[in-house]
Amino acid sequence: MNIGTYSFEEYMERIQAFHGSTAPGMIAGGIMVTIARGHLPKGEIFDVISESGHCLPDAVQLLTPCTIGNGWLKIVNTSRYALIFYNKYTGAGVRVYLDAHKLAGFPAVRGWFLRELPKPEQDLGAIVQEFKRAGQAIFGLQKVQVKPEYIQGEKKVRAAIAICPVCGEAYKSNLGDICPACRGTAPFLVVQDGGDA
Amino acid sequence: MNIGTYSFEEYMERIQAFHGSTAPGMIAGGIMVTIARGHLPKGEIFDVISESGHCLPDAVQLLTPCTIGNGWLKIVNTSRYALIFYNKYTGAGVRVYLDAHKLAGFPAVRGWFLRELPKPEQDLGAIVQEFKRAGQAIFGLQKVQVKPEYIQGEKKVRAAIAICPVCGEAYKSNLGDICPACRGTAPFLVVQDGGDA
Repeated sequence: MNIGTYSFEEYMERIQAFHGSTAPGMIAGGIMVTIARGHLPKGEIFDVISESGHCLPDAVQLLTPCTIGNGWLKIVNTSRYALIFYNKYTGAGVRVYLDAHKLAGFPAVRGWFLRELPKPEQDLGAIVQEFKRAGQAIFGLQKVQVKPEYIQGEKKVRAAIAICPVCGEAYKSNLGDICPACRGTAPFLVVQDGGDA
Repeated sequence: MNIGTYSFEEYMERIQAFHGSTAPGMIAGGIMVTIARGHLPKGEIFDVISESGHCLPDAVQLLTPCTIGNGWLKIVNTSRYALIFYNKYTGAGVRVYLDAHKLAGFPAVRGWFLRELPKPEQDLGAIVQEFKRAGQAIFGLQKVQVKPEYIQGEKKVRAAIAICPVCGEAYKSNLGDICPACRGTAPFLVVQDGGDA
């Protein structure tokens, strides 16, 4: 079984390097990316939505040009284990999901996916072997139409940048008179202002 | 100037491969990561918060073990151009930001960062040269204490997985009787249910 342009073993090495561990979700994600790309028209310029923030976004970032930082990958957390690949201009695309109803013959994958087994009792080796045996058979596929807010429309006018009168930092001026952080969304408190780096 | 363990030129190649373009924000981000790591205790096990979803998360993912999919990188969008590196258990850390008040001698960077120039008029070559000349001089540094919700506390009990009675897919049972997507957050409409991948 190949994952994208990698052999399964090469992909396992790439997971370790990028994600830090050979998590089952990265193996599932690799197969899901491979299925999705196989169902897109050749040469399609696609964007991706991940319905989970766990593992799946990293499989997309390893195997496609789409990253969180370049905006071609978005996370819309529905708590489901699914990836949507779609034409960024029309929104037409495919959705691939891990299908809980197809796991009867794959107890190790099932134990992990449905959390039937506590983590220390999960057997990673068995999970990997079951994924290799299952291949694409445990996934579902849908044709979907992505909602307009995720489709690239007319070129938006980019907001001007303002300097926040409270913190003194740059932010998008269309977000208000002071920046979102100074309105209370900052995830931290300043202990000491160093000024220079 | 080095970016992480790369020479500037090597880093530019890595940006192109991972992010798809040598965006100014990736250069800023690379310098910011380098500053932040230089101010962390040696061997610190850190998490990262990016205050912007543009470019910065990709610089973190290229240069550190922290990714969106492994959970060690989070995006808390305040619209400011800043990264926070912090001890994942105590929340003590450093915050690095691009300081708009230090850009007087760097017109190309300023034109990009404050959007004073429309994109087609920005000179990427000049921006790159100014970043190389500026190095760490155009960034600010703060010691910060990250809020408790971003710190790793007692091991949480992981929610059981349920099968949604509407869509039939697996989701975290603590999110309600039906999954979030079936309550209206799905970013798409199903056009055709393929069933098997």
